[in-house]
Amino acid sequence: MRDLPQLLDLIASFSKENPFPSSPNALYEPCGYILTLGGKRLRPALTLMGYELFEDNVENALSVAWAVELFHNFSLMHDDIMDAAPLRRGQPTVHHRWNTTTAILSGDVMLIYAYRFLAKAAAPENLPQLLQIFNRVATEVCEGQQMDVDFETQNSVSIPDYLRMIELKTAVLLGAALEMGAVCARTPEKDAQHLYEFGRLAGIAFQIQDDLLDTYGDPAKFGKQVGGDILQNKKTLLVLKTLETASEADVRALQQWMQTGAENPEEKVAAVRAIYDRNAIPELIAEEKKRFQQAAFLQLDAVNVPEERKSVLRNTVADLLEREY
Amino acid sequence: MRDLPQLLDLIASFSKENPFPSSPNALYEPCGYILTLGGKRLRPALTLMGYELFEDNVENALSVAWAVELFHNFSLMHDDIMDAAPLRRGQPTVHHRWNTTTAILSGDVMLIYAYRFLAKAAAPENLPQLLQIFNRVATEVCEGQQMDVDFETQNSVSIPDYLRMIELKTAVLLGAALEMGAVCARTPEKDAQHLYEFGRLAGIAFQIQDDLLDTYGDPAKFGKQVGGDILQNKKTLLVLKTLETASEADVRALQQWMQTGAENPEEKVAAVRAIYDRNAIPELIAEEKKRFQQAAFLQLDAVNVPEERKSVLRNTVADLLEREY
Repeated sequence: MRDLPQLLDLIASFSKENPFPSSPNALYEPCGYILTLGGKRLRPALTLMGYELFEDNVENALSVAWAVELFHNFSLMHDDIMDAAPLRRGQPTVHHRWNTTTAILSGDVMLIYAYRFLAKAAAPENLPQLLQIFNRVATEVCEGQQMDVDFETQNSVSIPDYLRMIELKTAVLLGAALEMGAVCARTPEKDAQHLYEFGRLAGIAFQIQDDLLDTYGDPAKFGKQVGGDILQNKKTLLVLKTLETASEADVRALQQWMQTGAENPEEKVAAVRAIYDRNAIPELIAEEKKRFQQAAFLQLDAVNVPEERKSVLRNTVADLLEREY
Repeated sequence: MRDLPQLLDLIASFSKENPFPSSPNALYEPCGYILTLGGKRLRPALTLMGYELFEDNVENALSVAWAVELFHNFSLMHDDIMDAAPLRRGQPTVHHRWNTTTAILSGDVMLIYAYRFLAKAAAPENLPQLLQIFNRVATEVCEGQQMDVDFETQNSVSIPDYLRMIELKTAVLLGAALEMGAVCARTPEKDAQHLYEFGRLAGIAFQIQDDLLDTYGDPAKFGKQVGGDILQNKKTLLVLKTLETASEADVRALQQWMQTGAENPEEKVAAVRAIYDRNAIPELIAEEKKRFQQAAFLQLDAVNVPEERKSVLRNTVADLLEREY
């Protein structure tokens, strides 16, 4: 069994041995670039962990793991255009460093390369099932992104709709990453399904935590500007929970803040946080997160392998879900 | 054996029976929209013809044929953004009727749906090979589009580079459409390869003809504004051939016209045509087309099935390549 750093090393080596072609340079250079922006490589690691629960020769799952990572980066490249985001992890986004045409076309070819690596999967008898999972989840990620886009112009968004959006946009890919690892190891359907559910539920918990950290994170650890969601008037779970549960006066106050610009950003963040605080929103959100987190680990418990094989996966996901804020 | 209208009917029925989902509407409506803009559906018809050369129950190839059509429409949707094209076949393009975000995301999901229909292919034992062909050609189409984008800002483009660009951007998909039909019919590798080459070479001939028709087509039959390439200063094969073979004075004259706007469009088209005419450019280009066309049909001749099985495919492609101009 390999620990997380060892799995990440394997992924880094695989990535080095399988670079994009050099020509046409304008097409492939941005694909290499976005992969160097320092993501956690959580998704391909999950695929390898999903495999290692059942089998030792984890190299067999590397190509599928890399397909998952390429798919994730394709979706980032296109989402950054749609969000008009100038920066990703402090570096220029592809459409900003190059242009929109480049970000569209390089993203397209990156998605196609995801399928290329999927097709290279060690055992061809796994291919139909892997392709089915991948196609389903790729479709869902697009649907989740569309819901996110739709929410921006929608007057009211319900909490169930919001949870469904983060599930599709983010969580299902974490589930599928694990499930595809399990399929590579030819695991019984039932265990692969438990792993999918584990990833999906943990992914929802992770996104809820992300909303919380954006407003309540330790600026030294969070890596993004704390309060960014408030300044962008984003309809986060904190906003939706406030609209649903806060006093009438506070609902009105929040709505007013969300219609103002950010002339005085510190004042705005402090004021909105005060609304959240006096309505116990962070506690309510933390409970919501905990519900998904607990449901997730029940699914991992149900996977039929000895507990010691689960420890790397269990600890990795537990660490991610207990970031301080 | 079915004739072309019968094959197109089958494709139309399949498309009706396999609509995109209705939700999220903003994601899927543009996918349905672009499919109604009245393309010739040549590519899926080629897949069915590639199958029918060898086997009768052509329904088995419909899902793969539809994958090819969806891939083609995905590429149109994204190319239209890159080309800032307001119209396609006289109707608003997707990014124009909706917006760029929509055209990116709907294009993405359409590409994923192409893979979904590919994965539904009747015989799972064909899947690895179909996926390999599809992935290769999808990559090449992106590379061809990148070359086309690069050419816009490049000072000089060679004729071999131009031919390579149209081969990648357009012709290989015609070849692959035929080849995948043959693979669905479990044809010997050699015949599938001849069919690929037939489609690829005919596709190059077809694109050369397209350049010619843009300047010399019969306005009543061509369906686009004749002279559009001249007015957009596009580096077509006519331009490149002129730069390579014309007198020094005419080269300079063409270069000057290509740096002017189109204040007086009729004057500009007439002047550039006159340059082409006195350097026998249309004749040279027609010869170039003929070379590829002849090479194409030699490949069809080499396919090892009785001549009568080839007639639908032969006549369809011959008709396309002999449009009057």
